[in-house]
Amino acid sequence: MITLQLINPKSIAVIGASENIEKPGGKALYNVKNGTFEGGLYAVNPKHENIQGVQTFRNVSELPQIDLAILAIPANLCVPVIKSLLEEKNTKAVVVLSAGFSEMGPIGKKMEKEMALLADKHQATLIGPNCIGVMNPYHQSVFVSPVPKMEWGGTALVSSSGATCVFILESALSKGLTFSSVFSVGNAVQTCVEDVVEYLNETYEEGKSPQTILMYIESIKKPQLLLKNARELIGKGCRLAAVKSGISDAGGRAAASHTGAMLNSDMAVDALFRKAGIVRCNSRGELTAMGAVLQHPKLTGKRIAIITHAGGPGVMLTDVLSTGGMKVPRLSDELMRNLRDELFEGASTANPIDILATGTAEQLEKCIRFCDRLESIDGIVVIFGSPGLFSNIDTYRVIREQQNSCLKPIYTILPSILNAKEEMDQFVDEGGVFFEDEFVLGNALLNESRYVAPVEEKETGKLKNEKKIKALLKDRKGLIDSHVGFELLDLMGVSRPRNKFISTEEEAINAAQELGFPLVMKVVGPAHKSDVGGVVLDVVTLEAVRENFKRLIGIKNAAGVEVCQMERGLEVLIGVKKEPGFGHIITCGLGGIFVEILKDIQYTLAPVTRTEALRMIRSLKSYKLIQGARGKEGISEEVFAEVICKVSDLLVLVPEIEEMDLNPLMGRGHHLSAVDVVIKM
Amino acid sequence: MITLQLINPKSIAVIGASENIEKPGGKALYNVKNGTFEGGLYAVNPKHENIQGVQTFRNVSELPQIDLAILAIPANLCVPVIKSLLEEKNTKAVVVLSAGFSEMGPIGKKMEKEMALLADKHQATLIGPNCIGVMNPYHQSVFVSPVPKMEWGGTALVSSSGATCVFILESALSKGLTFSSVFSVGNAVQTCVEDVVEYLNETYEEGKSPQTILMYIESIKKPQLLLKNARELIGKGCRLAAVKSGISDAGGRAAASHTGAMLNSDMAVDALFRKAGIVRCNSRGELTAMGAVLQHPKLTGKRIAIITHAGGPGVMLTDVLSTGGMKVPRLSDELMRNLRDELFEGASTANPIDILATGTAEQLEKCIRFCDRLESIDGIVVIFGSPGLFSNIDTYRVIREQQNSCLKPIYTILPSILNAKEEMDQFVDEGGVFFEDEFVLGNALLNESRYVAPVEEKETGKLKNEKKIKALLKDRKGLIDSHVGFELLDLMGVSRPRNKFISTEEEAINAAQELGFPLVMKVVGPAHKSDVGGVVLDVVTLEAVRENFKRLIGIKNAAGVEVCQMERGLEVLIGVKKEPGFGHIITCGLGGIFVEILKDIQYTLAPVTRTEALRMIRSLKSYKLIQGARGKEGISEEVFAEVICKVSDLLVLVPEIEEMDLNPLMGRGHHLSAVDVVIKM
Repeated sequence: MITLQLINPKSIAVIGASENIEKPGGKALYNVKNGTFEGGLYAVNPKHENIQGVQTFRNVSELPQIDLAILAIPANLCVPVIKSLLEEKNTKAVVVLSAGFSEMGPIGKKMEKEMALLADKHQATLIGPNCIGVMNPYHQSVFVSPVPKMEWGGTALVSSSGATCVFILESALSKGLTFSSVFSVGNAVQTCVEDVVEYLNETYEEGKSPQTILMYIESIKKPQLLLKNARELIGKGCRLAAVKSGISDAGGRAAASHTGAMLNSDMAVDALFRKAGIVRCNSRGELTAMGAVLQHPKLTGKRIAIITHAGGPGVMLTDVLSTGGMKVPRLSDELMRNLRDELFEGASTANPIDILATGTAEQLEKCIRFCDRLESIDGIVVIFGSPGLFSNIDTYRVIREQQNSCLKPIYTILPSILNAKEEMDQFVDEGGVFFEDEFVLGNALLNESRYVAPVEEKETGKLKNEKKIKALLKDRKGLIDSHVGFELLDLMGVSRPRNKFISTEEEAINAAQELGFPLVMKVVGPAHKSDVGGVVLDVVTLEAVRENFKRLIGIKNAAGVEVCQMERGLEVLIGVKKEPGFGHIITCGLGGIFVEILKDIQYTLAPVTRTEALRMIRSLKSYKLIQGARGKEGISEEVFAEVICKVSDLLVLVPEIEEMDLNPLMGRGHHLSAVDVVIKM
Repeated sequence: MITLQLINPKSIAVIGASENIEKPGGKALYNVKNGTFEGGLYAVNPKHENIQGVQTFRNVSELPQIDLAILAIPANLCVPVIKSLLEEKNTKAVVVLSAGFSEMGPIGKKMEKEMALLADKHQATLIGPNCIGVMNPYHQSVFVSPVPKMEWGGTALVSSSGATCVFILESALSKGLTFSSVFSVGNAVQTCVEDVVEYLNETYEEGKSPQTILMYIESIKKPQLLLKNARELIGKGCRLAAVKSGISDAGGRAAASHTGAMLNSDMAVDALFRKAGIVRCNSRGELTAMGAVLQHPKLTGKRIAIITHAGGPGVMLTDVLSTGGMKVPRLSDELMRNLRDELFEGASTANPIDILATGTAEQLEKCIRFCDRLESIDGIVVIFGSPGLFSNIDTYRVIREQQNSCLKPIYTILPSILNAKEEMDQFVDEGGVFFEDEFVLGNALLNESRYVAPVEEKETGKLKNEKKIKALLKDRKGLIDSHVGFELLDLMGVSRPRNKFISTEEEAINAAQELGFPLVMKVVGPAHKSDVGGVVLDVVTLEAVRENFKRLIGIKNAAGVEVCQMERGLEVLIGVKKEPGFGHIITCGLGGIFVEILKDIQYTLAPVTRTEALRMIRSLKSYKLIQGARGKEGISEEVFAEVICKVSDLLVLVPEIEEMDLNPLMGRGHHLSAVDVVIKM
């Protein structure tokens, strides 16, 4: 819960303020005082009367009513101070900068819990402890630098880690990103990253609220809250990108099913982000590059024009864009002719458009305008550095002007971080945002071009036989017997090979005639059937049925024989694993040896819509095998998607399922049959 | 050919010198005059007598003898000036800065040829045209900035593009890389990147020559020269890394064989680099990061200790290193106990070692020394930014001291490009090299940890029946008939299914009995056998042989029937494609539908050693299938490698082969048989 007093306080007190701005309590007071805050500002320090020219009290009880308190005092003093503020001063927002809590051990953990309980009780927001604070256009309550100008509509940054928040800001500001709010949630005892996202969603105002939300997340405490609010924000036109650090060790937990062992909790994060429409980044650099791309007008297609004064970076950018699936389309001869007259002899107009090292600001302007008018181009990249001979002021001014007047996004690569440093600083001062390296921009554009908006959530509960299914699985624990599994498949309407359990030769012959060839015959009784020669594939004659029956029934511990239709065709699989907090991960892929060796699987979080299921199937590297290739019929993707959705519906109906494995599902065309099923409750 | 006069001239003349240092002729003279050059410096300008205080002549003929001439004059004047210099002034090195040659059209191309011929005739080096020049510790003959201090033993930078060379320098210098020489070869009419690498190899002196060579290459003109010299440099302890830009469009050229169509000229570059031991980078950023890693002591293992004052970057670095196959090993409890006493309460000693935001320079020093002594650690990464409260001078000094005294490489991440800018500048001034982003360092370390030194070249010509093979393939053109292909396999000693061509039922029975079941029967005559039902697989009884013979011989245009042993088992492939200049690319992978859909292939340049062949096989994603998986026997990798080497030997013997395809090769264990062979001469 985030209160108005945290966002727009009428009064702020810095508890533990100091004259020394090398100390957190000194720097925090300094930042608030020298920032945009216009309300009443107070300091608390037992030893001084006037700190940094701010009215100072000896202790909290002397303070007037305070909306927002910033605590920079030893950890062990925080709980009583917070209690006093909440109970006596009507304080509704507390930012605890102090460290020394749960990271120190159980005593710190206990103090954190007390703080959170107090804040909850008084309906106040608690940020931290162990954080750098909060900044927005109303106030900049942080104890660190840099303190950027906070601008409505700028990017929001929400971070688990204070130091990482600072480093992201440094990287972002030097590239020209602008921010409207920064939240550092620290140990997040009451307010976590997901709560801030909820707040940004619930208070969203077009034109004022951030359009881009960047996050650095160390642990996802409320995945469903993040999912819900991210989807809603995206529906309002926002974009979200995040680094989730701390990738878990794959296979850290034992899994009963075959597919389960391939899934880990980092995949749950991946699936959550994809479902929520959050772009996942691997580093501070990728996150800020994504933020910089999103600070431009929306890119609506994959076709990029590159205007450069130097060949090399244009070629490298073309390489990264083309290999990643974007296009740097060659301009038609006619178009090129129009442009060529404007440029120096030797300039290349094919795209990349190379205006040469001697190219002027006027030529650059003409090229940008030219590309902005082209129907065959969706976005423009300008590359302009300097060999150090003369100033780039004019060219950078032209870029800013064209960015303001053109309809298409104009991304800027400014590689001359030494030769054109002053001009670049001015470019940023005037509101420009730039990329230093073409490869970094290229990858961010690819990330953007691959972005797929989240799928609408679907209504659930379409399974037939819901009551019977619930009854069948009621109170079951651990691994479910395969005959129960097959019964479940029948109730769900998922095909599976028909089978008969028999114990005489005559029954075997009857079963074979009823089920039809080819057949599989298995001994019933022994645990490891294959090891005792208890499985026979591809039985195609009555004579073979007879012979195999005799042999199988003679195996030690044989209680009978199972005669089963043998499936042929392509093998695929569907797997399920429950991830605490996230719900079920559903995976699909090729079955059998393919999945084991080549790990060609796709996954998402349940519930799964038909669109999502088809998207997963079509994203498999081996999708062409499913479509049918080299004259071999594949499997209907519609039918495969339908089975995935049925499994998803089952998980909604029976969330107690921990793991589930349909592996393999075999068939051709519209026939797809689950040969084996493993379920763990 | 690079002359001593280019490297260490006794006299330099700048032709087209100017008083205006915003012009190339002005800046070039300025840079030479204000650099380390100690010999005779002269200027040529028809209109001035004394430019920038340098003795100036009206024309070239008035000059004294000149070792190195730098030309900054219009393109059309260059040829006569070069002629005059070479013929009259004994000039042995000419750097042509001027642009306006082949990039302008045929006239410029002709002038380039004339220049190159003149230089060759007089055994002089010609650099350019259209370049920024050359820098080394003796002289800095470039018309651009920055002009760094050139240090013996520093990195060498060789670039096709002048502007890219400047941008790489700017990125590198700001990170702290030091350089010993910079060559910008421009249009490279005489001297190309490969020639410079040859020169660096032939003049290599330990302790003085560069240990690291960074290259930006737009086109590889002499692949074999690059291969030879890169290998030799690596043998002397050097390391090479390069960006090769301009990735060709895959499938641009039509290929006759199946595998040929999957290979493109960019793969030839890849294969060349791998064979030569050159680390391939995708961008300026990756190239300079690699250069920065190589400026540290050699990393001899995969185990990294991370010492940080902020949790986030440590976690992100751990993520990228661990997922890429390096290790951030947890320190044992005993080791941690030793360290914990030295640090503040709450510090983490598990690795990453987090000394907390309040961690001191002394604590950092203790941690670095501690890790330097650990047997379980191969390299150390220090992460140290600043929240902007106090100076980092002490901590950065400690890092530099420890880098000088420790045995292990200590890589430094300095993320605070705003808060700690001054301290970072000082760190670089004192010889430090740093990374701004942990992900960038992580990826460079992964690149380094995966580095495999090039394989020794092998002697060739081990094939049996060399004369017969040459005779068999002599004067053949285009696609080779399959029976010739099979005869070739027999001569090479590559297994293939045995077959018989028959025309009576009796012959069919005899053939079946001789070859053994299972068999394949094919009609001979019709072109599209499958379409007319002319291929029967898996014939296993004499009765079936009889029936199928009758049917096949009855097909329209049937001239006979082929009876052939049917192979079973795993399918693999070997493919060959000739790439002009590079020689033959040899590829291997899984055969059949796998290679088509999943593109799981590996490739290298011929000739291939056994070690290389095994390395390729083991790098396949599907290697586990070749090893044998899920109870299915695989294929002996030794046998597979032997066939690859035989194909390689064939290519040495008959280099006229353009494409070759053994697809599939089928078998199990030590049996591997080429079912089909396609050869194009």
